[in-house]
Amino acid sequence: MIEAGIIGGAGYTAGELIRILLNHPEVNLNFVFSTSQPGKPIYSIHQDLIGDTEIKFTDKINTEVEVVFLCLGHGNSKKFLAENQFSAKTKIVDLSTDFRQKSDDHKFIYGLPELNKKDIEKADLIANPGCFATAITLAILPLAKNALLKDEVHINAVTGATGAGTSLSGTTHFSWRDNNFSAYKSFEHQHLNEIGQSLKQLQADHDAEINFIPNRGNFSRGIHATAYTKFEGDLDEAKKLYADFYQDAAFTFITDEELHLKQVVNTNKCLLRLQKFGNKLLITSVIDNLLKGASGQAVQNMNLMFGLDEKLGLNLKASYF
Amino acid sequence: MIEAGIIGGAGYTAGELIRILLNHPEVNLNFVFSTSQPGKPIYSIHQDLIGDTEIKFTDKINTEVEVVFLCLGHGNSKKFLAENQFSAKTKIVDLSTDFRQKSDDHKFIYGLPELNKKDIEKADLIANPGCFATAITLAILPLAKNALLKDEVHINAVTGATGAGTSLSGTTHFSWRDNNFSAYKSFEHQHLNEIGQSLKQLQADHDAEINFIPNRGNFSRGIHATAYTKFEGDLDEAKKLYADFYQDAAFTFITDEELHLKQVVNTNKCLLRLQKFGNKLLITSVIDNLLKGASGQAVQNMNLMFGLDEKLGLNLKASYF
Amino acid sequence: MIEAGIIGGAGYTAGELIRILLNHPEVNLNFVFSTSQPGKPIYSIHQDLIGDTEIKFTDKINTEVEVVFLCLGHGNSKKFLAENQFSAKTKIVDLSTDFRQKSDDHKFIYGLPELNKKDIEKADLIANPGCFATAITLAILPLAKNALLKDEVHINAVTGATGAGTSLSGTTHFSWRDNNFSAYKSFEHQHLNEIGQSLKQLQADHDAEINFIPNRGNFSRGIHATAYTKFEGDLDEAKKLYADFYQDAAFTFITDEELHLKQVVNTNKCLLRLQKFGNKLLITSVIDNLLKGASGQAVQNMNLMFGLDEKLGLNLKASYF
Amino acid sequence: MIEAGIIGGAGYTAGELIRILLNHPEVNLNFVFSTSQPGKPIYSIHQDLIGDTEIKFTDKINTEVEVVFLCLGHGNSKKFLAENQFSAKTKIVDLSTDFRQKSDDHKFIYGLPELNKKDIEKADLIANPGCFATAITLAILPLAKNALLKDEVHINAVTGATGAGTSLSGTTHFSWRDNNFSAYKSFEHQHLNEIGQSLKQLQADHDAEINFIPNRGNFSRGIHATAYTKFEGDLDEAKKLYADFYQDAAFTFITDEELHLKQVVNTNKCLLRLQKFGNKLLITSVIDNLLKGASGQAVQNMNLMFGLDEKLGLNLKASYF
Repeated sequence: MIEAGIIGGAGYTAGELIRILLNHPEVNLNFVFSTSQPGKPIYSIHQDLIGDTEIKFTDKINTEVEVVFLCLGHGNSKKFLAENQFSAKTKIVDLSTDFRQKSDDHKFIYGLPELNKKDIEKADLIANPGCFATAITLAILPLAKNALLKDEVHINAVTGATGAGTSLSGTTHFSWRDNNFSAYKSFEHQHLNEIGQSLKQLQADHDAEINFIPNRGNFSRGIHATAYTKFEGDLDEAKKLYADFYQDAAFTFITDEELHLKQVVNTNKCLLRLQKFGNKLLITSVIDNLLKGASGQAVQNMNLMFGLDEKLGLNLKASYF
Repeated sequence: MIEAGIIGGAGYTAGELIRILLNHPEVNLNFVFSTSQPGKPIYSIHQDLIGDTEIKFTDKINTEVEVVFLCLGHGNSKKFLAENQFSAKTKIVDLSTDFRQKSDDHKFIYGLPELNKKDIEKADLIANPGCFATAITLAILPLAKNALLKDEVHINAVTGATGAGTSLSGTTHFSWRDNNFSAYKSFEHQHLNEIGQSLKQLQADHDAEINFIPNRGNFSRGIHATAYTKFEGDLDEAKKLYADFYQDAAFTFITDEELHLKQVVNTNKCLLRLQKFGNKLLITSVIDNLLKGASGQAVQNMNLMFGLDEKLGLNLKASYF
Repeated sequence: MIEAGIIGGAGYTAGELIRILLNHPEVNLNFVFSTSQPGKPIYSIHQDLIGDTEIKFTDKINTEVEVVFLCLGHGNSKKFLAENQFSAKTKIVDLSTDFRQKSDDHKFIYGLPELNKKDIEKADLIANPGCFATAITLAILPLAKNALLKDEVHINAVTGATGAGTSLSGTTHFSWRDNNFSAYKSFEHQHLNEIGQSLKQLQADHDAEINFIPNRGNFSRGIHATAYTKFEGDLDEAKKLYADFYQDAAFTFITDEELHLKQVVNTNKCLLRLQKFGNKLLITSVIDNLLKGASGQAVQNMNLMFGLDEKLGLNLKASYF
Repeated sequence: MIEAGIIGGAGYTAGELIRILLNHPEVNLNFVFSTSQPGKPIYSIHQDLIGDTEIKFTDKINTEVEVVFLCLGHGNSKKFLAENQFSAKTKIVDLSTDFRQKSDDHKFIYGLPELNKKDIEKADLIANPGCFATAITLAILPLAKNALLKDEVHINAVTGATGAGTSLSGTTHFSWRDNNFSAYKSFEHQHLNEIGQSLKQLQADHDAEINFIPNRGNFSRGIHATAYTKFEGDLDEAKKLYADFYQDAAFTFITDEELHLKQVVNTNKCLLRLQKFGNKLLITSVIDNLLKGASGQAVQNMNLMFGLDEKLGLNLKASYF
């Protein structure tokens, strides 16, 4: 059994990790570290876990675990690792933005298995991708792979309220968000950096604009994204590029069916649909922001790092309706 | 034109009052007092008012207005009136709980028009009823009027998230409340006092238990309540009691149609349906918690105090769907 | 009082018309025609109207009314008018698509007041615009007015479930739509025709592509649209063009505040926000699909045709939350 | 591997069964019978299953399977079994109401494991309980076990839209149900029969009234129920009765934490909370109507019938938010 620890245990991504790891056949959840809730049962915060586990939050870190997941606010992972030393054998999966940009300052691998599976299998340090970045990158990566991203890409995506985290704010108040819809951070969302880095990894000369309008939807979880760009080939050519690129993907599938968000909610899947209109290729992409967009992908990365079946513990029942 | 002021202008009930008073043909909104937002346009907080008004929040109180509405947190109205003196002609409508219980310490009239219309017409000081209290009291008051409340009453009611106010809390976070449901303050809700006082006003010997389970619903506005108790007569007798009691009511109607919450959302109405099962009379009651349950009823009381048509400014279009 | 009739009284747009007209100070609702519900009180279908009116649906048409609103399915208005003859004085507002395209076959005026106010004032026959068409056209019309629509426009918009009408379908089933999101009719929505016609009316040489992705949102009412295109000037220039164009508009307002859908729900307003990113101008537009996008705009057109204040009966209280 | 078949494969409960059985380590999903969709991949209806399985609906029944689940409309199971003969070894789990009432006409065991575990283990025919019946019976069964149900019980429960099935109706239209709430079938819900039968099984002299008001909530899945009745003992005594009764239950847990619906959504659990007010014991009960209230309990019964771990395949990740 792989001994696993979680740092920052009270938030949404930690909750999802705990839910997955409690049922993972090769993992023992060694500790859940929380400075705010030490001594409390984890079901006092993640209240669906009543009856499932008696584990308590702790403020002691076991530095000898084999894998640790960092579920800290952006900026805090770097700080935490500067102040805490794990054993040489401890692999780290960081869910924050802190190490997603390649740099000479660190050795973290960007944990998008569809892009970096071989490197992930050999890695000890993983920077887990952002949720919007996952949905969008998967939608257009096969074009970059074939050096076909030459024109602007137009992206519109909507995320659920869990995307904003557990903190309370005006736009996460139920009375505000219920039956509401709004765009935010248009053209300036921070995930554009990750997306650009991944595209350039496969198409070094990529420099066309990525126009991205994110939106706040009145649902709890999931990301629905549409992306379109000029594409000279016909629809079958596009489908072939995508099918080839994702032929070994464990959770990313191409379909001709109409897509909607709830097809993937509470699963680790990404579904993609391709359509052609005039000279434009439209790709629709749906994921669960907390699973394929966060904790599910983190476990997928863990599975790869430890040589396990990539899908182990991740055959999750969709809630669907 | 009646010059009107609002104290505590940033919350939900103040917002609803502003929306109503801006379109009220006999009212001029003289000032909206807010210690937190002085100088800002009111549309910066009540953001649907863009294009409707350029009024700004003020931290100056005009003590010469003819009517002032207190939209303060419970406990703060008493404090505010101790520290601020209005002119002799200023009528006051207080939306907090502070003066709802009769007492030798104050002269506020409990502002439920179906119960106290004549007193309201002559009043200068109104204690506006609570939202649950309005929905529930209207459901059973005709029984008390006829001294028929001799057995326990069993009440279950559900309220929207606006019932909890603008403050942020765990149970008003969208991710928590979306698609959720929960009971709270069972048997101990503070509105039981108001309800009991109103029942005793019409049936002095009333002392049977009122069992009340309030619930948090995953919608923004409205209250749906069911109440049942033993009733010896048949359904037609019950309907006659209710029809007689509400024959002059401006906004409370008895119907044989099935009821659902959205029939009254964004209106000042209360709809009641009566059914008989065995020896039990079941009454279903629906209101908008922010209108008939707060700001709409406050304006209804103002209309009565100033000798205006009770419905003036309150013929509101339901949003319905 | 203007005697008014409604044809096709059981649907959403008829319901909204009835709600507005019952409170309109210059209108008497003469009849509501319905082949499916004759003899039933209208509150048996539009169930929020209990207590407001005792009017019944009728299968008799009074051909002498001064104005009639056609709330029929697309294709049925033309058929209905071929089979039914109104008096010479009867003005007609058609809410279907049947007469929105200019043609030598009919004399209907496209009823977008921001575009055709003078013609509407003199008209007897109005083709009321579509909901998406209204939100989108208002977002970009000032650019066409100044011949600045030279490059592609990229539009993404989301509509509520009422946009699909009262008919039951897989995508309007609550279990499907709740907490869901999906794109549909991408690049091929039928409203593109109306939009193109309005743009060409102001910018005859317009022939750049309008890329439009409509989406189904999990809310009941409202449209939120974003549109962007290349714009050489700076933000202030853009704002001036829009302010000039809409200076006499009764319900369309430019704002620097952040926008969200519920600012306009249950009102007849359109709110627009302009932002500049790089060489792109982004316009956000929000309307209520059933009011400014249908029945509210129909009454606005009626007001103009009868020489009334354009806003009469349309100062509606937003539901907002 | 247990070969399993499903009859009536297009509805919600079949969908949930398929999701569970595809991941069940001891089951092979042999066939999914559907007269309406033969030849189509099951992911064309249960659209979250894209990428998970290529199984197609069939109109051929394999009568040699070891277990078959009947997901037919009420009344149709009896008819189906009269017309179709399975092998002697085939165990049957019927999810309809057809065999829930004990009768000399059939040998079905009522499949509530907390009540009938030993009989289920030996059974070949299971009548799977109704959703409301499960939530409510589990809330009060320990009282019947101790012959303490002597006074009226007052129950109020709310169910999600999936409780009404996939069929389209006015009350499952999104525009109607969104942000709405309504009571229905008050005092007359058909599940009262099942509940009464289970109570009498443990307390033969039980004849006090069960007052039950069911409600339609504006969420997709889950049941939240409150039940109260007179109870002479103190809270600790009540807790002890419940703890004793459920000590061996695999999915039913007593807790002192506040309860809300989403703690159990997408799980097979039932959570119960006990409170005492005056002389009344209040029990809150939450389940997922499609899992513990239908398909999850069906698999739990299958596990028991085949001597498997009761929880096999049912350690489901809650969606929670």
